[in-house]
Amino acid sequence: MKAILLTFTLMSGLAIGLCWGQTMDDSKPAPTNIVGQDYPRIHSDLSVTFQVKAPDAQKVQLQLGKIYDMTKDADGVWSVTVPPQVVGFHYYYLIIDGVQVSDPASESFYGVGRQSSGIEIPEDASVTYSTVQDVPHGQVRTVRYFSKVTGKWRRCFVYTPPGYDTNLKTKYPVLYLMPGYGEDDRGWFTQGRADIILDNLIAAGKAVPMIAITDNQFTALKPGEKPLLLGGRGRGAGAPRPDFGSYGSTFTEVMLNDLIPTIDSTFRVRPGRDYRAMAGLSMGGMQTFLTTLPHLDHFAYIGGFSPGVPQAQIETVLKDPADFNKQVKLLWLGTGSVERANNPNILTLHESLDKAGVKNVYFESPGTAHEWLTWRRDLYQFAPLLFR
Amino acid sequence: MKAILLTFTLMSGLAIGLCWGQTMDDSKPAPTNIVGQDYPRIHSDLSVTFQVKAPDAQKVQLQLGKIYDMTKDADGVWSVTVPPQVVGFHYYYLIIDGVQVSDPASESFYGVGRQSSGIEIPEDASVTYSTVQDVPHGQVRTVRYFSKVTGKWRRCFVYTPPGYDTNLKTKYPVLYLMPGYGEDDRGWFTQGRADIILDNLIAAGKAVPMIAITDNQFTALKPGEKPLLLGGRGRGAGAPRPDFGSYGSTFTEVMLNDLIPTIDSTFRVRPGRDYRAMAGLSMGGMQTFLTTLPHLDHFAYIGGFSPGVPQAQIETVLKDPADFNKQVKLLWLGTGSVERANNPNILTLHESLDKAGVKNVYFESPGTAHEWLTWRRDLYQFAPLLFR
Repeated sequence: MKAILLTFTLMSGLAIGLCWGQTMDDSKPAPTNIVGQDYPRIHSDLSVTFQVKAPDAQKVQLQLGKIYDMTKDADGVWSVTVPPQVVGFHYYYLIIDGVQVSDPASESFYGVGRQSSGIEIPEDASVTYSTVQDVPHGQVRTVRYFSKVTGKWRRCFVYTPPGYDTNLKTKYPVLYLMPGYGEDDRGWFTQGRADIILDNLIAAGKAVPMIAITDNQFTALKPGEKPLLLGGRGRGAGAPRPDFGSYGSTFTEVMLNDLIPTIDSTFRVRPGRDYRAMAGLSMGGMQTFLTTLPHLDHFAYIGGFSPGVPQAQIETVLKDPADFNKQVKLLWLGTGSVERANNPNILTLHESLDKAGVKNVYFESPGTAHEWLTWRRDLYQFAPLLFR
Repeated sequence: MKAILLTFTLMSGLAIGLCWGQTMDDSKPAPTNIVGQDYPRIHSDLSVTFQVKAPDAQKVQLQLGKIYDMTKDADGVWSVTVPPQVVGFHYYYLIIDGVQVSDPASESFYGVGRQSSGIEIPEDASVTYSTVQDVPHGQVRTVRYFSKVTGKWRRCFVYTPPGYDTNLKTKYPVLYLMPGYGEDDRGWFTQGRADIILDNLIAAGKAVPMIAITDNQFTALKPGEKPLLLGGRGRGAGAPRPDFGSYGSTFTEVMLNDLIPTIDSTFRVRPGRDYRAMAGLSMGGMQTFLTTLPHLDHFAYIGGFSPGVPQAQIETVLKDPADFNKQVKLLWLGTGSVERANNPNILTLHESLDKAGVKNVYFESPGTAHEWLTWRRDLYQFAPLLFR
């Protein structure tokens, strides 16, 4: 078999680093690197150096938000150091002679409708809410369930809090967490670190012990139904893909008829709307509104993390603020400050709700865009307000 | 932002298919495709067609065992149809102008020391042992534990059988399952489908309900210790990587001092060696021998699935077959028939054990190589023999 063609510097990082003119600094491999990979390396100013060996390629670029040209050295190793990055998790790609691919040096994450490279730029070490601490840890469990709505087996992930297996008489409230467009049930417990965040909040007494569920929005379209989202980024976004149709109304049916009954019968759940929350990011936020607002008999807590906003459902809320305020214990609207500067729609929604007298909480994540750090911070601030 | 450069045929599969001269047959997207991706497509004879759009690339190849050249059409879409494939799971790559990358159209799996594309060639529909059936399903749980041996938090995955949460007085035997070199704790429950196989075996009454654990072998080297494996395939194999050092003796210590006590105290486990099994594939099989053979007071069931063979530990077994036979209820040796044709070392080991009077079971998976289908079949045949 032909030798594997892509190699990265492993123990030779120092030599090659010096070779292309940069002294070894206090840079460290990103935590998202594959075990044993020295690159990407994050420098102390949060600039990042990427490398890939590609002697035969004509042009190699890095796509991390912007697109950066990489330069080739005499050994065929392409490199680029990009400016200081915002902390948090970012998808990125290599573009090799025009083809956008994952970087073999990093872990891959399902996002943007495909497996994408991810890089974690760690927050300051003093920020510990989303890193594993010496506290009791919950479990994340895969649960398979049959959906009568779609006629297929589905999978969801279920976080059970520390003590679930020993406090056998305790029943727990439930938070349903939805991922965004082009992500799936894996996102919240990988990119989102939801289990770690909840572990830390519960250990600190800041959040009540709760079960958290995440599922995907891939369900069948109803006959004749059009997908809700016809635009958006990513390959194929906008194409009427049968498996992608759940951004219409089908997921709500799956959730009410299949998922919630499965969770309620499988886990020790406190029954009823007062102990059930739903939140989601981006398109998952729109899904949250589409599912909860017409079914307030099922949900008392609602979170939109950089959500899409379904106008018809919001109009209904605006028509009777008093009734809404009586039923809903929390309506949360979050966005990133950078995101808001580009598109103030969440702030505008917050203001129009305030003006109409609809109680809501508005949160703005400082310095972040439409990205996972915004949503981790949403969860960190949102979860303590639940089930009080 | 520049448009995403890599696009695949989604709804236009038919048109492009006709364009490059192949009629649409009864081919289907592989089950490992990203949701909504039409390619790779598996034909009825198990040949497979791959596509990637790369107008600016000079040379695009597919690496699936062998390396195949792909050909470009007028639209810049490169294609190749490879001969009928062996059923089961295979890692594969695209090679774009010399760079080995994952195919953005497929799911990625951690294997061969990196995130690799995987393609599942389904077995005949009558073969149901490794596909989700309408039977009670267990759960796969992430468990975090602190290792005193490495001084770090670790993660393992724990399969709990159907009924674990309701049969609260039942205690279960435990099978520890190790992945191979360049794989990690994710392998057995993704590539390996261990949870599905155990669900189906338990539902059929062929295996006793058991807990199954999988962990990774990334632990620190001891001071001055050299990694056990200095050769092998994959990028960087052979380099003394600190995080890869557990192929020496450290993992055994982690397992005996950290992992087993964690599992025994976290789950309802039947205590003692008679209810504890360990098995592993490839380097995980060697790890199994290295851990179990010197510690038979901890293990009564041992499985090597295409294992590496540590001669010193085997010599010890050969010295006192009667004692070994008295202690060990099952020693399992598995390999693939294609693998055995290339390297008969497992068959040779089996024959030498037989000759010495050491009881063992030899299993050969028909038509498969050193690959996951061999190991799925190992598990399917091995698990029914446990804890009887």
